[in-house]
Amino acid sequence: MAAGGSGEDRLIARLFEPIARHPGALGLKDDAAFLQLPAGHHLVLTKDALVAGVHFFPDDPPASIARKAMRVNLSDLAAKGAEPLGVMLAFAIPPDMDDAALAEFARGIGEDCLLFGAPLLGGDTVRTPGPFTVSITALGSVPIGRMVRRTTARPGQAIVVTGTIGDGALGLALRLDPDRPGFAALDAAGRAYLADRYLHPRPRVGLASTVRAHARAAMDVSDGLVGDLEKMLAASGVGGEIDAGKVPLSPAARAAIQAEPALLATALTGGDDYEILATMGEGDVDAFEAAAIAAGIGASVIGRTAVGAGLVVRGADGAALRFASTSFSHF
Amino acid sequence: MAAGGSGEDRLIARLFEPIARHPGALGLKDDAAFLQLPAGHHLVLTKDALVAGVHFFPDDPPASIARKAMRVNLSDLAAKGAEPLGVMLAFAIPPDMDDAALAEFARGIGEDCLLFGAPLLGGDTVRTPGPFTVSITALGSVPIGRMVRRTTARPGQAIVVTGTIGDGALGLALRLDPDRPGFAALDAAGRAYLADRYLHPRPRVGLASTVRAHARAAMDVSDGLVGDLEKMLAASGVGGEIDAGKVPLSPAARAAIQAEPALLATALTGGDDYEILATMGEGDVDAFEAAAIAAGIGASVIGRTAVGAGLVVRGADGAALRFASTSFSHF
Repeated sequence: MAAGGSGEDRLIARLFEPIARHPGALGLKDDAAFLQLPAGHHLVLTKDALVAGVHFFPDDPPASIARKAMRVNLSDLAAKGAEPLGVMLAFAIPPDMDDAALAEFARGIGEDCLLFGAPLLGGDTVRTPGPFTVSITALGSVPIGRMVRRTTARPGQAIVVTGTIGDGALGLALRLDPDRPGFAALDAAGRAYLADRYLHPRPRVGLASTVRAHARAAMDVSDGLVGDLEKMLAASGVGGEIDAGKVPLSPAARAAIQAEPALLATALTGGDDYEILATMGEGDVDAFEAAAIAAGIGASVIGRTAVGAGLVVRGADGAALRFASTSFSHF
Repeated sequence: MAAGGSGEDRLIARLFEPIARHPGALGLKDDAAFLQLPAGHHLVLTKDALVAGVHFFPDDPPASIARKAMRVNLSDLAAKGAEPLGVMLAFAIPPDMDDAALAEFARGIGEDCLLFGAPLLGGDTVRTPGPFTVSITALGSVPIGRMVRRTTARPGQAIVVTGTIGDGALGLALRLDPDRPGFAALDAAGRAYLADRYLHPRPRVGLASTVRAHARAAMDVSDGLVGDLEKMLAASGVGGEIDAGKVPLSPAARAAIQAEPALLATALTGGDDYEILATMGEGDVDAFEAAAIAAGIGASVIGRTAVGAGLVVRGADGAALRFASTSFSHF
């Protein structure tokens, strides 16, 4: 952690030194950390910042904010086929954030560091007159040249997505308006599931080597399946088509959409999925699916890439679906 | 850069893609960057966040804010003996920051990336209802095991500092109260020099290999010479003594202190120096000084470490100086 005043030093010592166990973190007592990269590997770097009131609710539990900040970054690593090496953490503390909240935030960071094998290496703690803000740089590794990109999809590949889509976006919609018909149709367990999927992304860290082995292009779904897939196809210079009926839905999402069909668009375009979206040759699909099932996550073929440009999303009747907006934007 | 809405995408494309020339940045078109570490090297990582109204003035020129954010991080690398590899940049844009200011901020980042050989690798751009906030993770490399730490000073070593001390703190004091007697005594060039030293840190990147070759412990002086040296001595379990009269001062700082002796404490404890503070054996001093002079920076022996604990700062009459506060704290 960067040197600061004694208040900062004490805060760091109390809350963060116990979770910075990597030898290269030097107990957060130096101005920098060091790290040895495995031989024959590239470093993979990603950085996501989150702002209270923009990327999370100011009254979210601080440990949940910590988990979201960790996991949106770890999700990017997983989708690139990278194994986590560690994280650099900076956060800006608003005047009304007390020590108990900071302790909970530190607990959330520390638990995820252990859970995902991504040790805290260093960072910075500052004060802000504005909202609580968290910035994490996540570091990972891949064998040299093996980072899976989003620009390398080719025509005629299967479009595959892990886990289930829409749970995070429906969890957010539920939080904003719990009385909508779609959510009234759910039991308490269904509502709790969606709320948790929004609050606690589940980065598919365990699938990193599977992505490397089988995917030809990949990204994580953070801003909505349709919009993110459009981005990946455009970046790769190909077109594609998916079948909305093949998009994997959780039982809770399926029930909500059945009760309120307008929620299908929310699920497909709302974001906060943190699943892995990949393209691959037909010959890789079975192995990818098997590995995803073995990891307790699952994977589904939802369509195919094609020569051309643009994405067509087919509905149940075979007609192309249109969306008011294909992805969520904080901007 | 992390995927975001189209507004973010356009902003990033226009302003930041042209300065992300490193091949591993992938033109900021992917979710992650990759980097090959030189063989036989450790990665060195540091991260400093800056908040408008806390670490810089909200009305500072945006290009200067960019330079400060880059340079406080590059200064940490230099003091660890690390050569820059690149930076990951996140910033949070307040509602009243317009595109012209963002363009100037991007220009400042881009120019420093080139100036210091620290290419922009990736990052994130978000909106905030709060103040402009910048977080940079700087990455560097050292031969394995050669990162210079702050915990490894030993008794009987020379305490050495690069460049001149106090210019940044005096530049800040000048900005806060330009009519103080010390600053009234300066000519326009002297005032401009101090103001610039505060606004634009000069990270001693060119001395990284010199630090590695000769320093036994090192850190950058960011929070005040006396307080930072106290920290390094305490972390190393040694004591020390410096002679205030040997602390190198610029002509402007010397003139200001001569006119207003109270400014000596500001210079010694005020921070924002971004010089390198190091300890080394007597046999290394000449080579360190020669290399620092060759780099156009210079270096001065200001005291010695000793068995024991604590730092004594001797004044002109040989008596120990006392300071109300030995370092600057944003906390």
